[in-house]
Amino acid sequence: MINVDEGKEMYELMKRLFPICRSITGDGVRKTLRILQEHIPITIVEVPTGTQVFDWEIPNEWNILDAYVMDEYGTKVIDFKENNLHVMGYSVPVNQEMSLDELQEYLYSLKKQPDAIPYITSYYKERWGFCLAHTERQRLKDGMYKVYINSELKPGSLTYGELIIPGETEEEIFLSTYICHPSMANNELSGPVLAVALAKWLLARKNKYTYRIVFIPETIGSLTYLSRNLEHMKKNIVAGFNLTCVGDDRTYSYLPSRQGNTLADKVAINVLKNHFPEFVEYTYLDRGSDERQYCSPGIDLPVASLMRTKYGQYTEYHTSLDNLDLVTQDGLQGSFTLYKDCLELLEWNEYYQIACLGEPQLGKRGLYPTLSTKESGSMVREMMNFIAYADGSNDLVDISNIIDAPAKRLIPIVEKLIENNLLLVNRGEKE
Amino acid sequence: MINVDEGKEMYELMKRLFPICRSITGDGVRKTLRILQEHIPITIVEVPTGTQVFDWEIPNEWNILDAYVMDEYGTKVIDFKENNLHVMGYSVPVNQEMSLDELQEYLYSLKKQPDAIPYITSYYKERWGFCLAHTERQRLKDGMYKVYINSELKPGSLTYGELIIPGETEEEIFLSTYICHPSMANNELSGPVLAVALAKWLLARKNKYTYRIVFIPETIGSLTYLSRNLEHMKKNIVAGFNLTCVGDDRTYSYLPSRQGNTLADKVAINVLKNHFPEFVEYTYLDRGSDERQYCSPGIDLPVASLMRTKYGQYTEYHTSLDNLDLVTQDGLQGSFTLYKDCLELLEWNEYYQIACLGEPQLGKRGLYPTLSTKESGSMVREMMNFIAYADGSNDLVDISNIIDAPAKRLIPIVEKLIENNLLLVNRGEKE
Amino acid sequence: MINVDEGKEMYELMKRLFPICRSITGDGVRKTLRILQEHIPITIVEVPTGTQVFDWEIPNEWNILDAYVMDEYGTKVIDFKENNLHVMGYSVPVNQEMSLDELQEYLYSLKKQPDAIPYITSYYKERWGFCLAHTERQRLKDGMYKVYINSELKPGSLTYGELIIPGETEEEIFLSTYICHPSMANNELSGPVLAVALAKWLLARKNKYTYRIVFIPETIGSLTYLSRNLEHMKKNIVAGFNLTCVGDDRTYSYLPSRQGNTLADKVAINVLKNHFPEFVEYTYLDRGSDERQYCSPGIDLPVASLMRTKYGQYTEYHTSLDNLDLVTQDGLQGSFTLYKDCLELLEWNEYYQIACLGEPQLGKRGLYPTLSTKESGSMVREMMNFIAYADGSNDLVDISNIIDAPAKRLIPIVEKLIENNLLLVNRGEKE
Repeated sequence: MINVDEGKEMYELMKRLFPICRSITGDGVRKTLRILQEHIPITIVEVPTGTQVFDWEIPNEWNILDAYVMDEYGTKVIDFKENNLHVMGYSVPVNQEMSLDELQEYLYSLKKQPDAIPYITSYYKERWGFCLAHTERQRLKDGMYKVYINSELKPGSLTYGELIIPGETEEEIFLSTYICHPSMANNELSGPVLAVALAKWLLARKNKYTYRIVFIPETIGSLTYLSRNLEHMKKNIVAGFNLTCVGDDRTYSYLPSRQGNTLADKVAINVLKNHFPEFVEYTYLDRGSDERQYCSPGIDLPVASLMRTKYGQYTEYHTSLDNLDLVTQDGLQGSFTLYKDCLELLEWNEYYQIACLGEPQLGKRGLYPTLSTKESGSMVREMMNFIAYADGSNDLVDISNIIDAPAKRLIPIVEKLIENNLLLVNRGEKE
Repeated sequence: MINVDEGKEMYELMKRLFPICRSITGDGVRKTLRILQEHIPITIVEVPTGTQVFDWEIPNEWNILDAYVMDEYGTKVIDFKENNLHVMGYSVPVNQEMSLDELQEYLYSLKKQPDAIPYITSYYKERWGFCLAHTERQRLKDGMYKVYINSELKPGSLTYGELIIPGETEEEIFLSTYICHPSMANNELSGPVLAVALAKWLLARKNKYTYRIVFIPETIGSLTYLSRNLEHMKKNIVAGFNLTCVGDDRTYSYLPSRQGNTLADKVAINVLKNHFPEFVEYTYLDRGSDERQYCSPGIDLPVASLMRTKYGQYTEYHTSLDNLDLVTQDGLQGSFTLYKDCLELLEWNEYYQIACLGEPQLGKRGLYPTLSTKESGSMVREMMNFIAYADGSNDLVDISNIIDAPAKRLIPIVEKLIENNLLLVNRGEKE
Repeated sequence: MINVDEGKEMYELMKRLFPICRSITGDGVRKTLRILQEHIPITIVEVPTGTQVFDWEIPNEWNILDAYVMDEYGTKVIDFKENNLHVMGYSVPVNQEMSLDELQEYLYSLKKQPDAIPYITSYYKERWGFCLAHTERQRLKDGMYKVYINSELKPGSLTYGELIIPGETEEEIFLSTYICHPSMANNELSGPVLAVALAKWLLARKNKYTYRIVFIPETIGSLTYLSRNLEHMKKNIVAGFNLTCVGDDRTYSYLPSRQGNTLADKVAINVLKNHFPEFVEYTYLDRGSDERQYCSPGIDLPVASLMRTKYGQYTEYHTSLDNLDLVTQDGLQGSFTLYKDCLELLEWNEYYQIACLGEPQLGKRGLYPTLSTKESGSMVREMMNFIAYADGSNDLVDISNIIDAPAKRLIPIVEKLIENNLLLVNRGEKE
């Protein structure tokens, strides 16, 4: 039986965040961050509309109060209050009457998924539109309709959250997740609730690394965050992960950093290979979230993604079917444990060096059987293998890979050898 | 339908060159080069007999006017004028009578290819001999024969042709082909006629690279050329190709440089892999033409070969069956296009670097769809993939390989990004 | 038919050494080394009990005169004089009576190999015990037994043998074998007798390398030897082999050094691949002999093992069944030839560089056919291939691997090219 305490807590938090209408700017983001603040001490940052962030500019802030399409009989045939996916993200205000024929070009539905409301946005070109299930669309009768969107698009700010958990060193582990999607569960709310659970766990520990955890709008938010913190991040971050699509309970998957061989990649692959050898391995060509910015040329941060089913790879993705049924407590709990294993491995990962020449005499320390029989050799084999490669040039992950033993099983060996003054940490020779 | 203009022109030129009796020295080479001069401004160079070229020495010049074997009835049973392959290359003069038994040891034929006249030479040891179809040889009747070779072997010179087409930079692309074989079509005339066609195409363009195109006798000619130009060539040549066996219309093949990973190899493999994935890949151990000199230790030029069927790999090779039937207009045209693709790729190949940090906002430049739907992402995927790897450390071929897109399809993307000031050329970091 | 002169001599020597009761210290080792001195001029070294060797300490010296278990009727049911494996190695003295029940906890046998006496030791914890065939153990009847071990465990010394055969250079080839096992043939006596045969062969030759050959107790002996000679060994040894399990006539096997790519590994793999392609390839994780010390972090000597069947991989291992029937003259002879091939390759292995630019003209030196026909090219192909890669950056093993020709076949080519002043030795660029 797996422990589902964190899974349950994450799921409860997600239920609370689900109804909020988030976008890349606006009060939905603020409301979301304020709820997260009830759990962990996030700092909220506002960056004004018009601010240049690399090749981009922070757009006007968007807020929406109400929206519907009403038929001639006063019935709201599409109603934002029922599901915030009904309105195209960043829709400009509208209040007019039109025939069904005219209305059709503002409607979005999916023929192949007739029961799903699609998720559609138009951040950088002024438009309006309504999204609905294709079956509903087909039920619309000829006649006149009132279309009404009470939204506001005007200078304001982009909002993000940041939490720094100081550790023994200034070197940082970076966790990024996004908070810009309206009511969808796996992509995106699974990411923020996992980030909160990991932050709680980290806050209760003494950590070697400093942890930088950010809750940002996707793309424009990561660009904004990078443009304000790039120098510091390039100097300090040794590994990072983009937390997304971690809530269903299907097979794990891995999307590498652009370089593909960073510490984040090494750790992720080692943990997955040893504990979930059936994991799906993508290439950077399959990317699609904030690693696009974090790993772009000149930024080059060591950021990889460990996911359950990757965005774009499940049919419910970017529709109203990505809901609280798709995500489960077990799914969230499994992702929490997976990330915890990765972070623990990072914390223990060092370039270890055995403290003597030749093999140490384990016997005199009670670490080796005193009777040499044909069979006894195999018992301490793993410790001997660890020692054989603890030459100061291999880190814990390297040794785990070479001797084909899960790093998790090597950590107690490291502890025992350190206790016996047999192991040095070679921080200087670290690559 | 492929364009066969060049193919036809090449084939016509080959028909004109075919009857000439070429060897590694002599008037056949001069006559050949003078015909080529009617098409492109070749410089003809004469290097005297006795000149030391590395470990070798330029031999006496050989010329031949007539040769035959005549039976007792005055019938020429073997006649040089019917086919210049009938005489062993570099045969010394002879004029004597002998029995068929005595004659036999001067005759060369192929039992396994009884209808083919073999091509045989003896450049560095004085001999004479006649070559003939085995069926003809078997028809010879007992009796006395007059053997007559009116040839001349005396100090003269080795002749080669050279064309330099200056470009924007002093860096050079090197094209080498040979003109020392008598009447054979695929090996060798396909090479010189392709070199002429490529030279014409290059002369009509503005090129980044300077092109060095040479028409030389094989082995002794390439050694001679190298010994006179080595320092310059080692300094300037960035890629080169040895043009041979490019006239039949069978599958393409590739023979690498000795190093195997030069720019010539990279470009050749990329073009073949993307456009002719069925191509035959040889190793340098299969070498057999002038790459033997160009790639030898201490010379180390980046010279590879793109061929149709490789020398030695087709039954007609080095016999009278390697004739104008074996080579076709389409075969030549295909090779022309293949080489043109390689040279164009070389011309466009640079270490590109995206001009901003983070992904550029393609939307504001009309390069990206403004509406984000579930499908829109795939449309500009190739451009985004190119940008993701345009980090100044990958050249165009590298990016093509990484993102698995033909370089030919990336060239318009490069043009569009340069137009939009989004791409820098990193010439300094070039390897 | 293979030459079995050395095989026969090795086998005879082994027969003489077999009955001696060796251990990691004591007179058995001394007696063994004195017999070896009759064949080769070994120096015998004694290192006192209590000497610190890295993390270890040389233990008390152990000697044994007699041991038995006697039943109530005066019959010796277990008798050391019948087979020295009957007594656990390093057994302390004992002289007492006990019931069969009490005796049982001091008895060692193998249920799965009921006819074999197991080999068991307890070097670093004071114990006593008897080993016997399981069938014999089952025949023991209830009743009282006298157990008697007349052994001595007290300060003395650890004994090893060393032979240095000076060569032209100070660079060394290192051969190590062990002399600490009682009556067992493949593991271990095959090792010392092969070392003697190789030493004789080397003593009769003029060698490029200096050879360092040691006969030591396993583990504590290699640690002792290393602790006394480490600086010199790290400076001079270019390749080494641990000689063990070389006497049966089953398939060869190879266990790499820890680094896996040392000169010893290169040579071993090249020879095996070309002459015994069916050889078994282990990894360093399968180690189990003195490479554990020679290759440990900070020692890092280039030591690999070429064996017949590896220790632990044959059922007779570490039992009385590893006897003179398991080892054969042919088995020993084959291992001798294999090691001789490796040492000869090491002696010839250099970074060769062709002495001219371009291909040399082999014809004028009588090394190339003067008549160029369709077939003649293949004749000197191997020499031309050797020359093509003799660029001063590839050693003989590299070239053998690249051109896929056994190094043994290339040695005569090297000789011929050196005779013709066509080859230079590039000792400076050696890695």
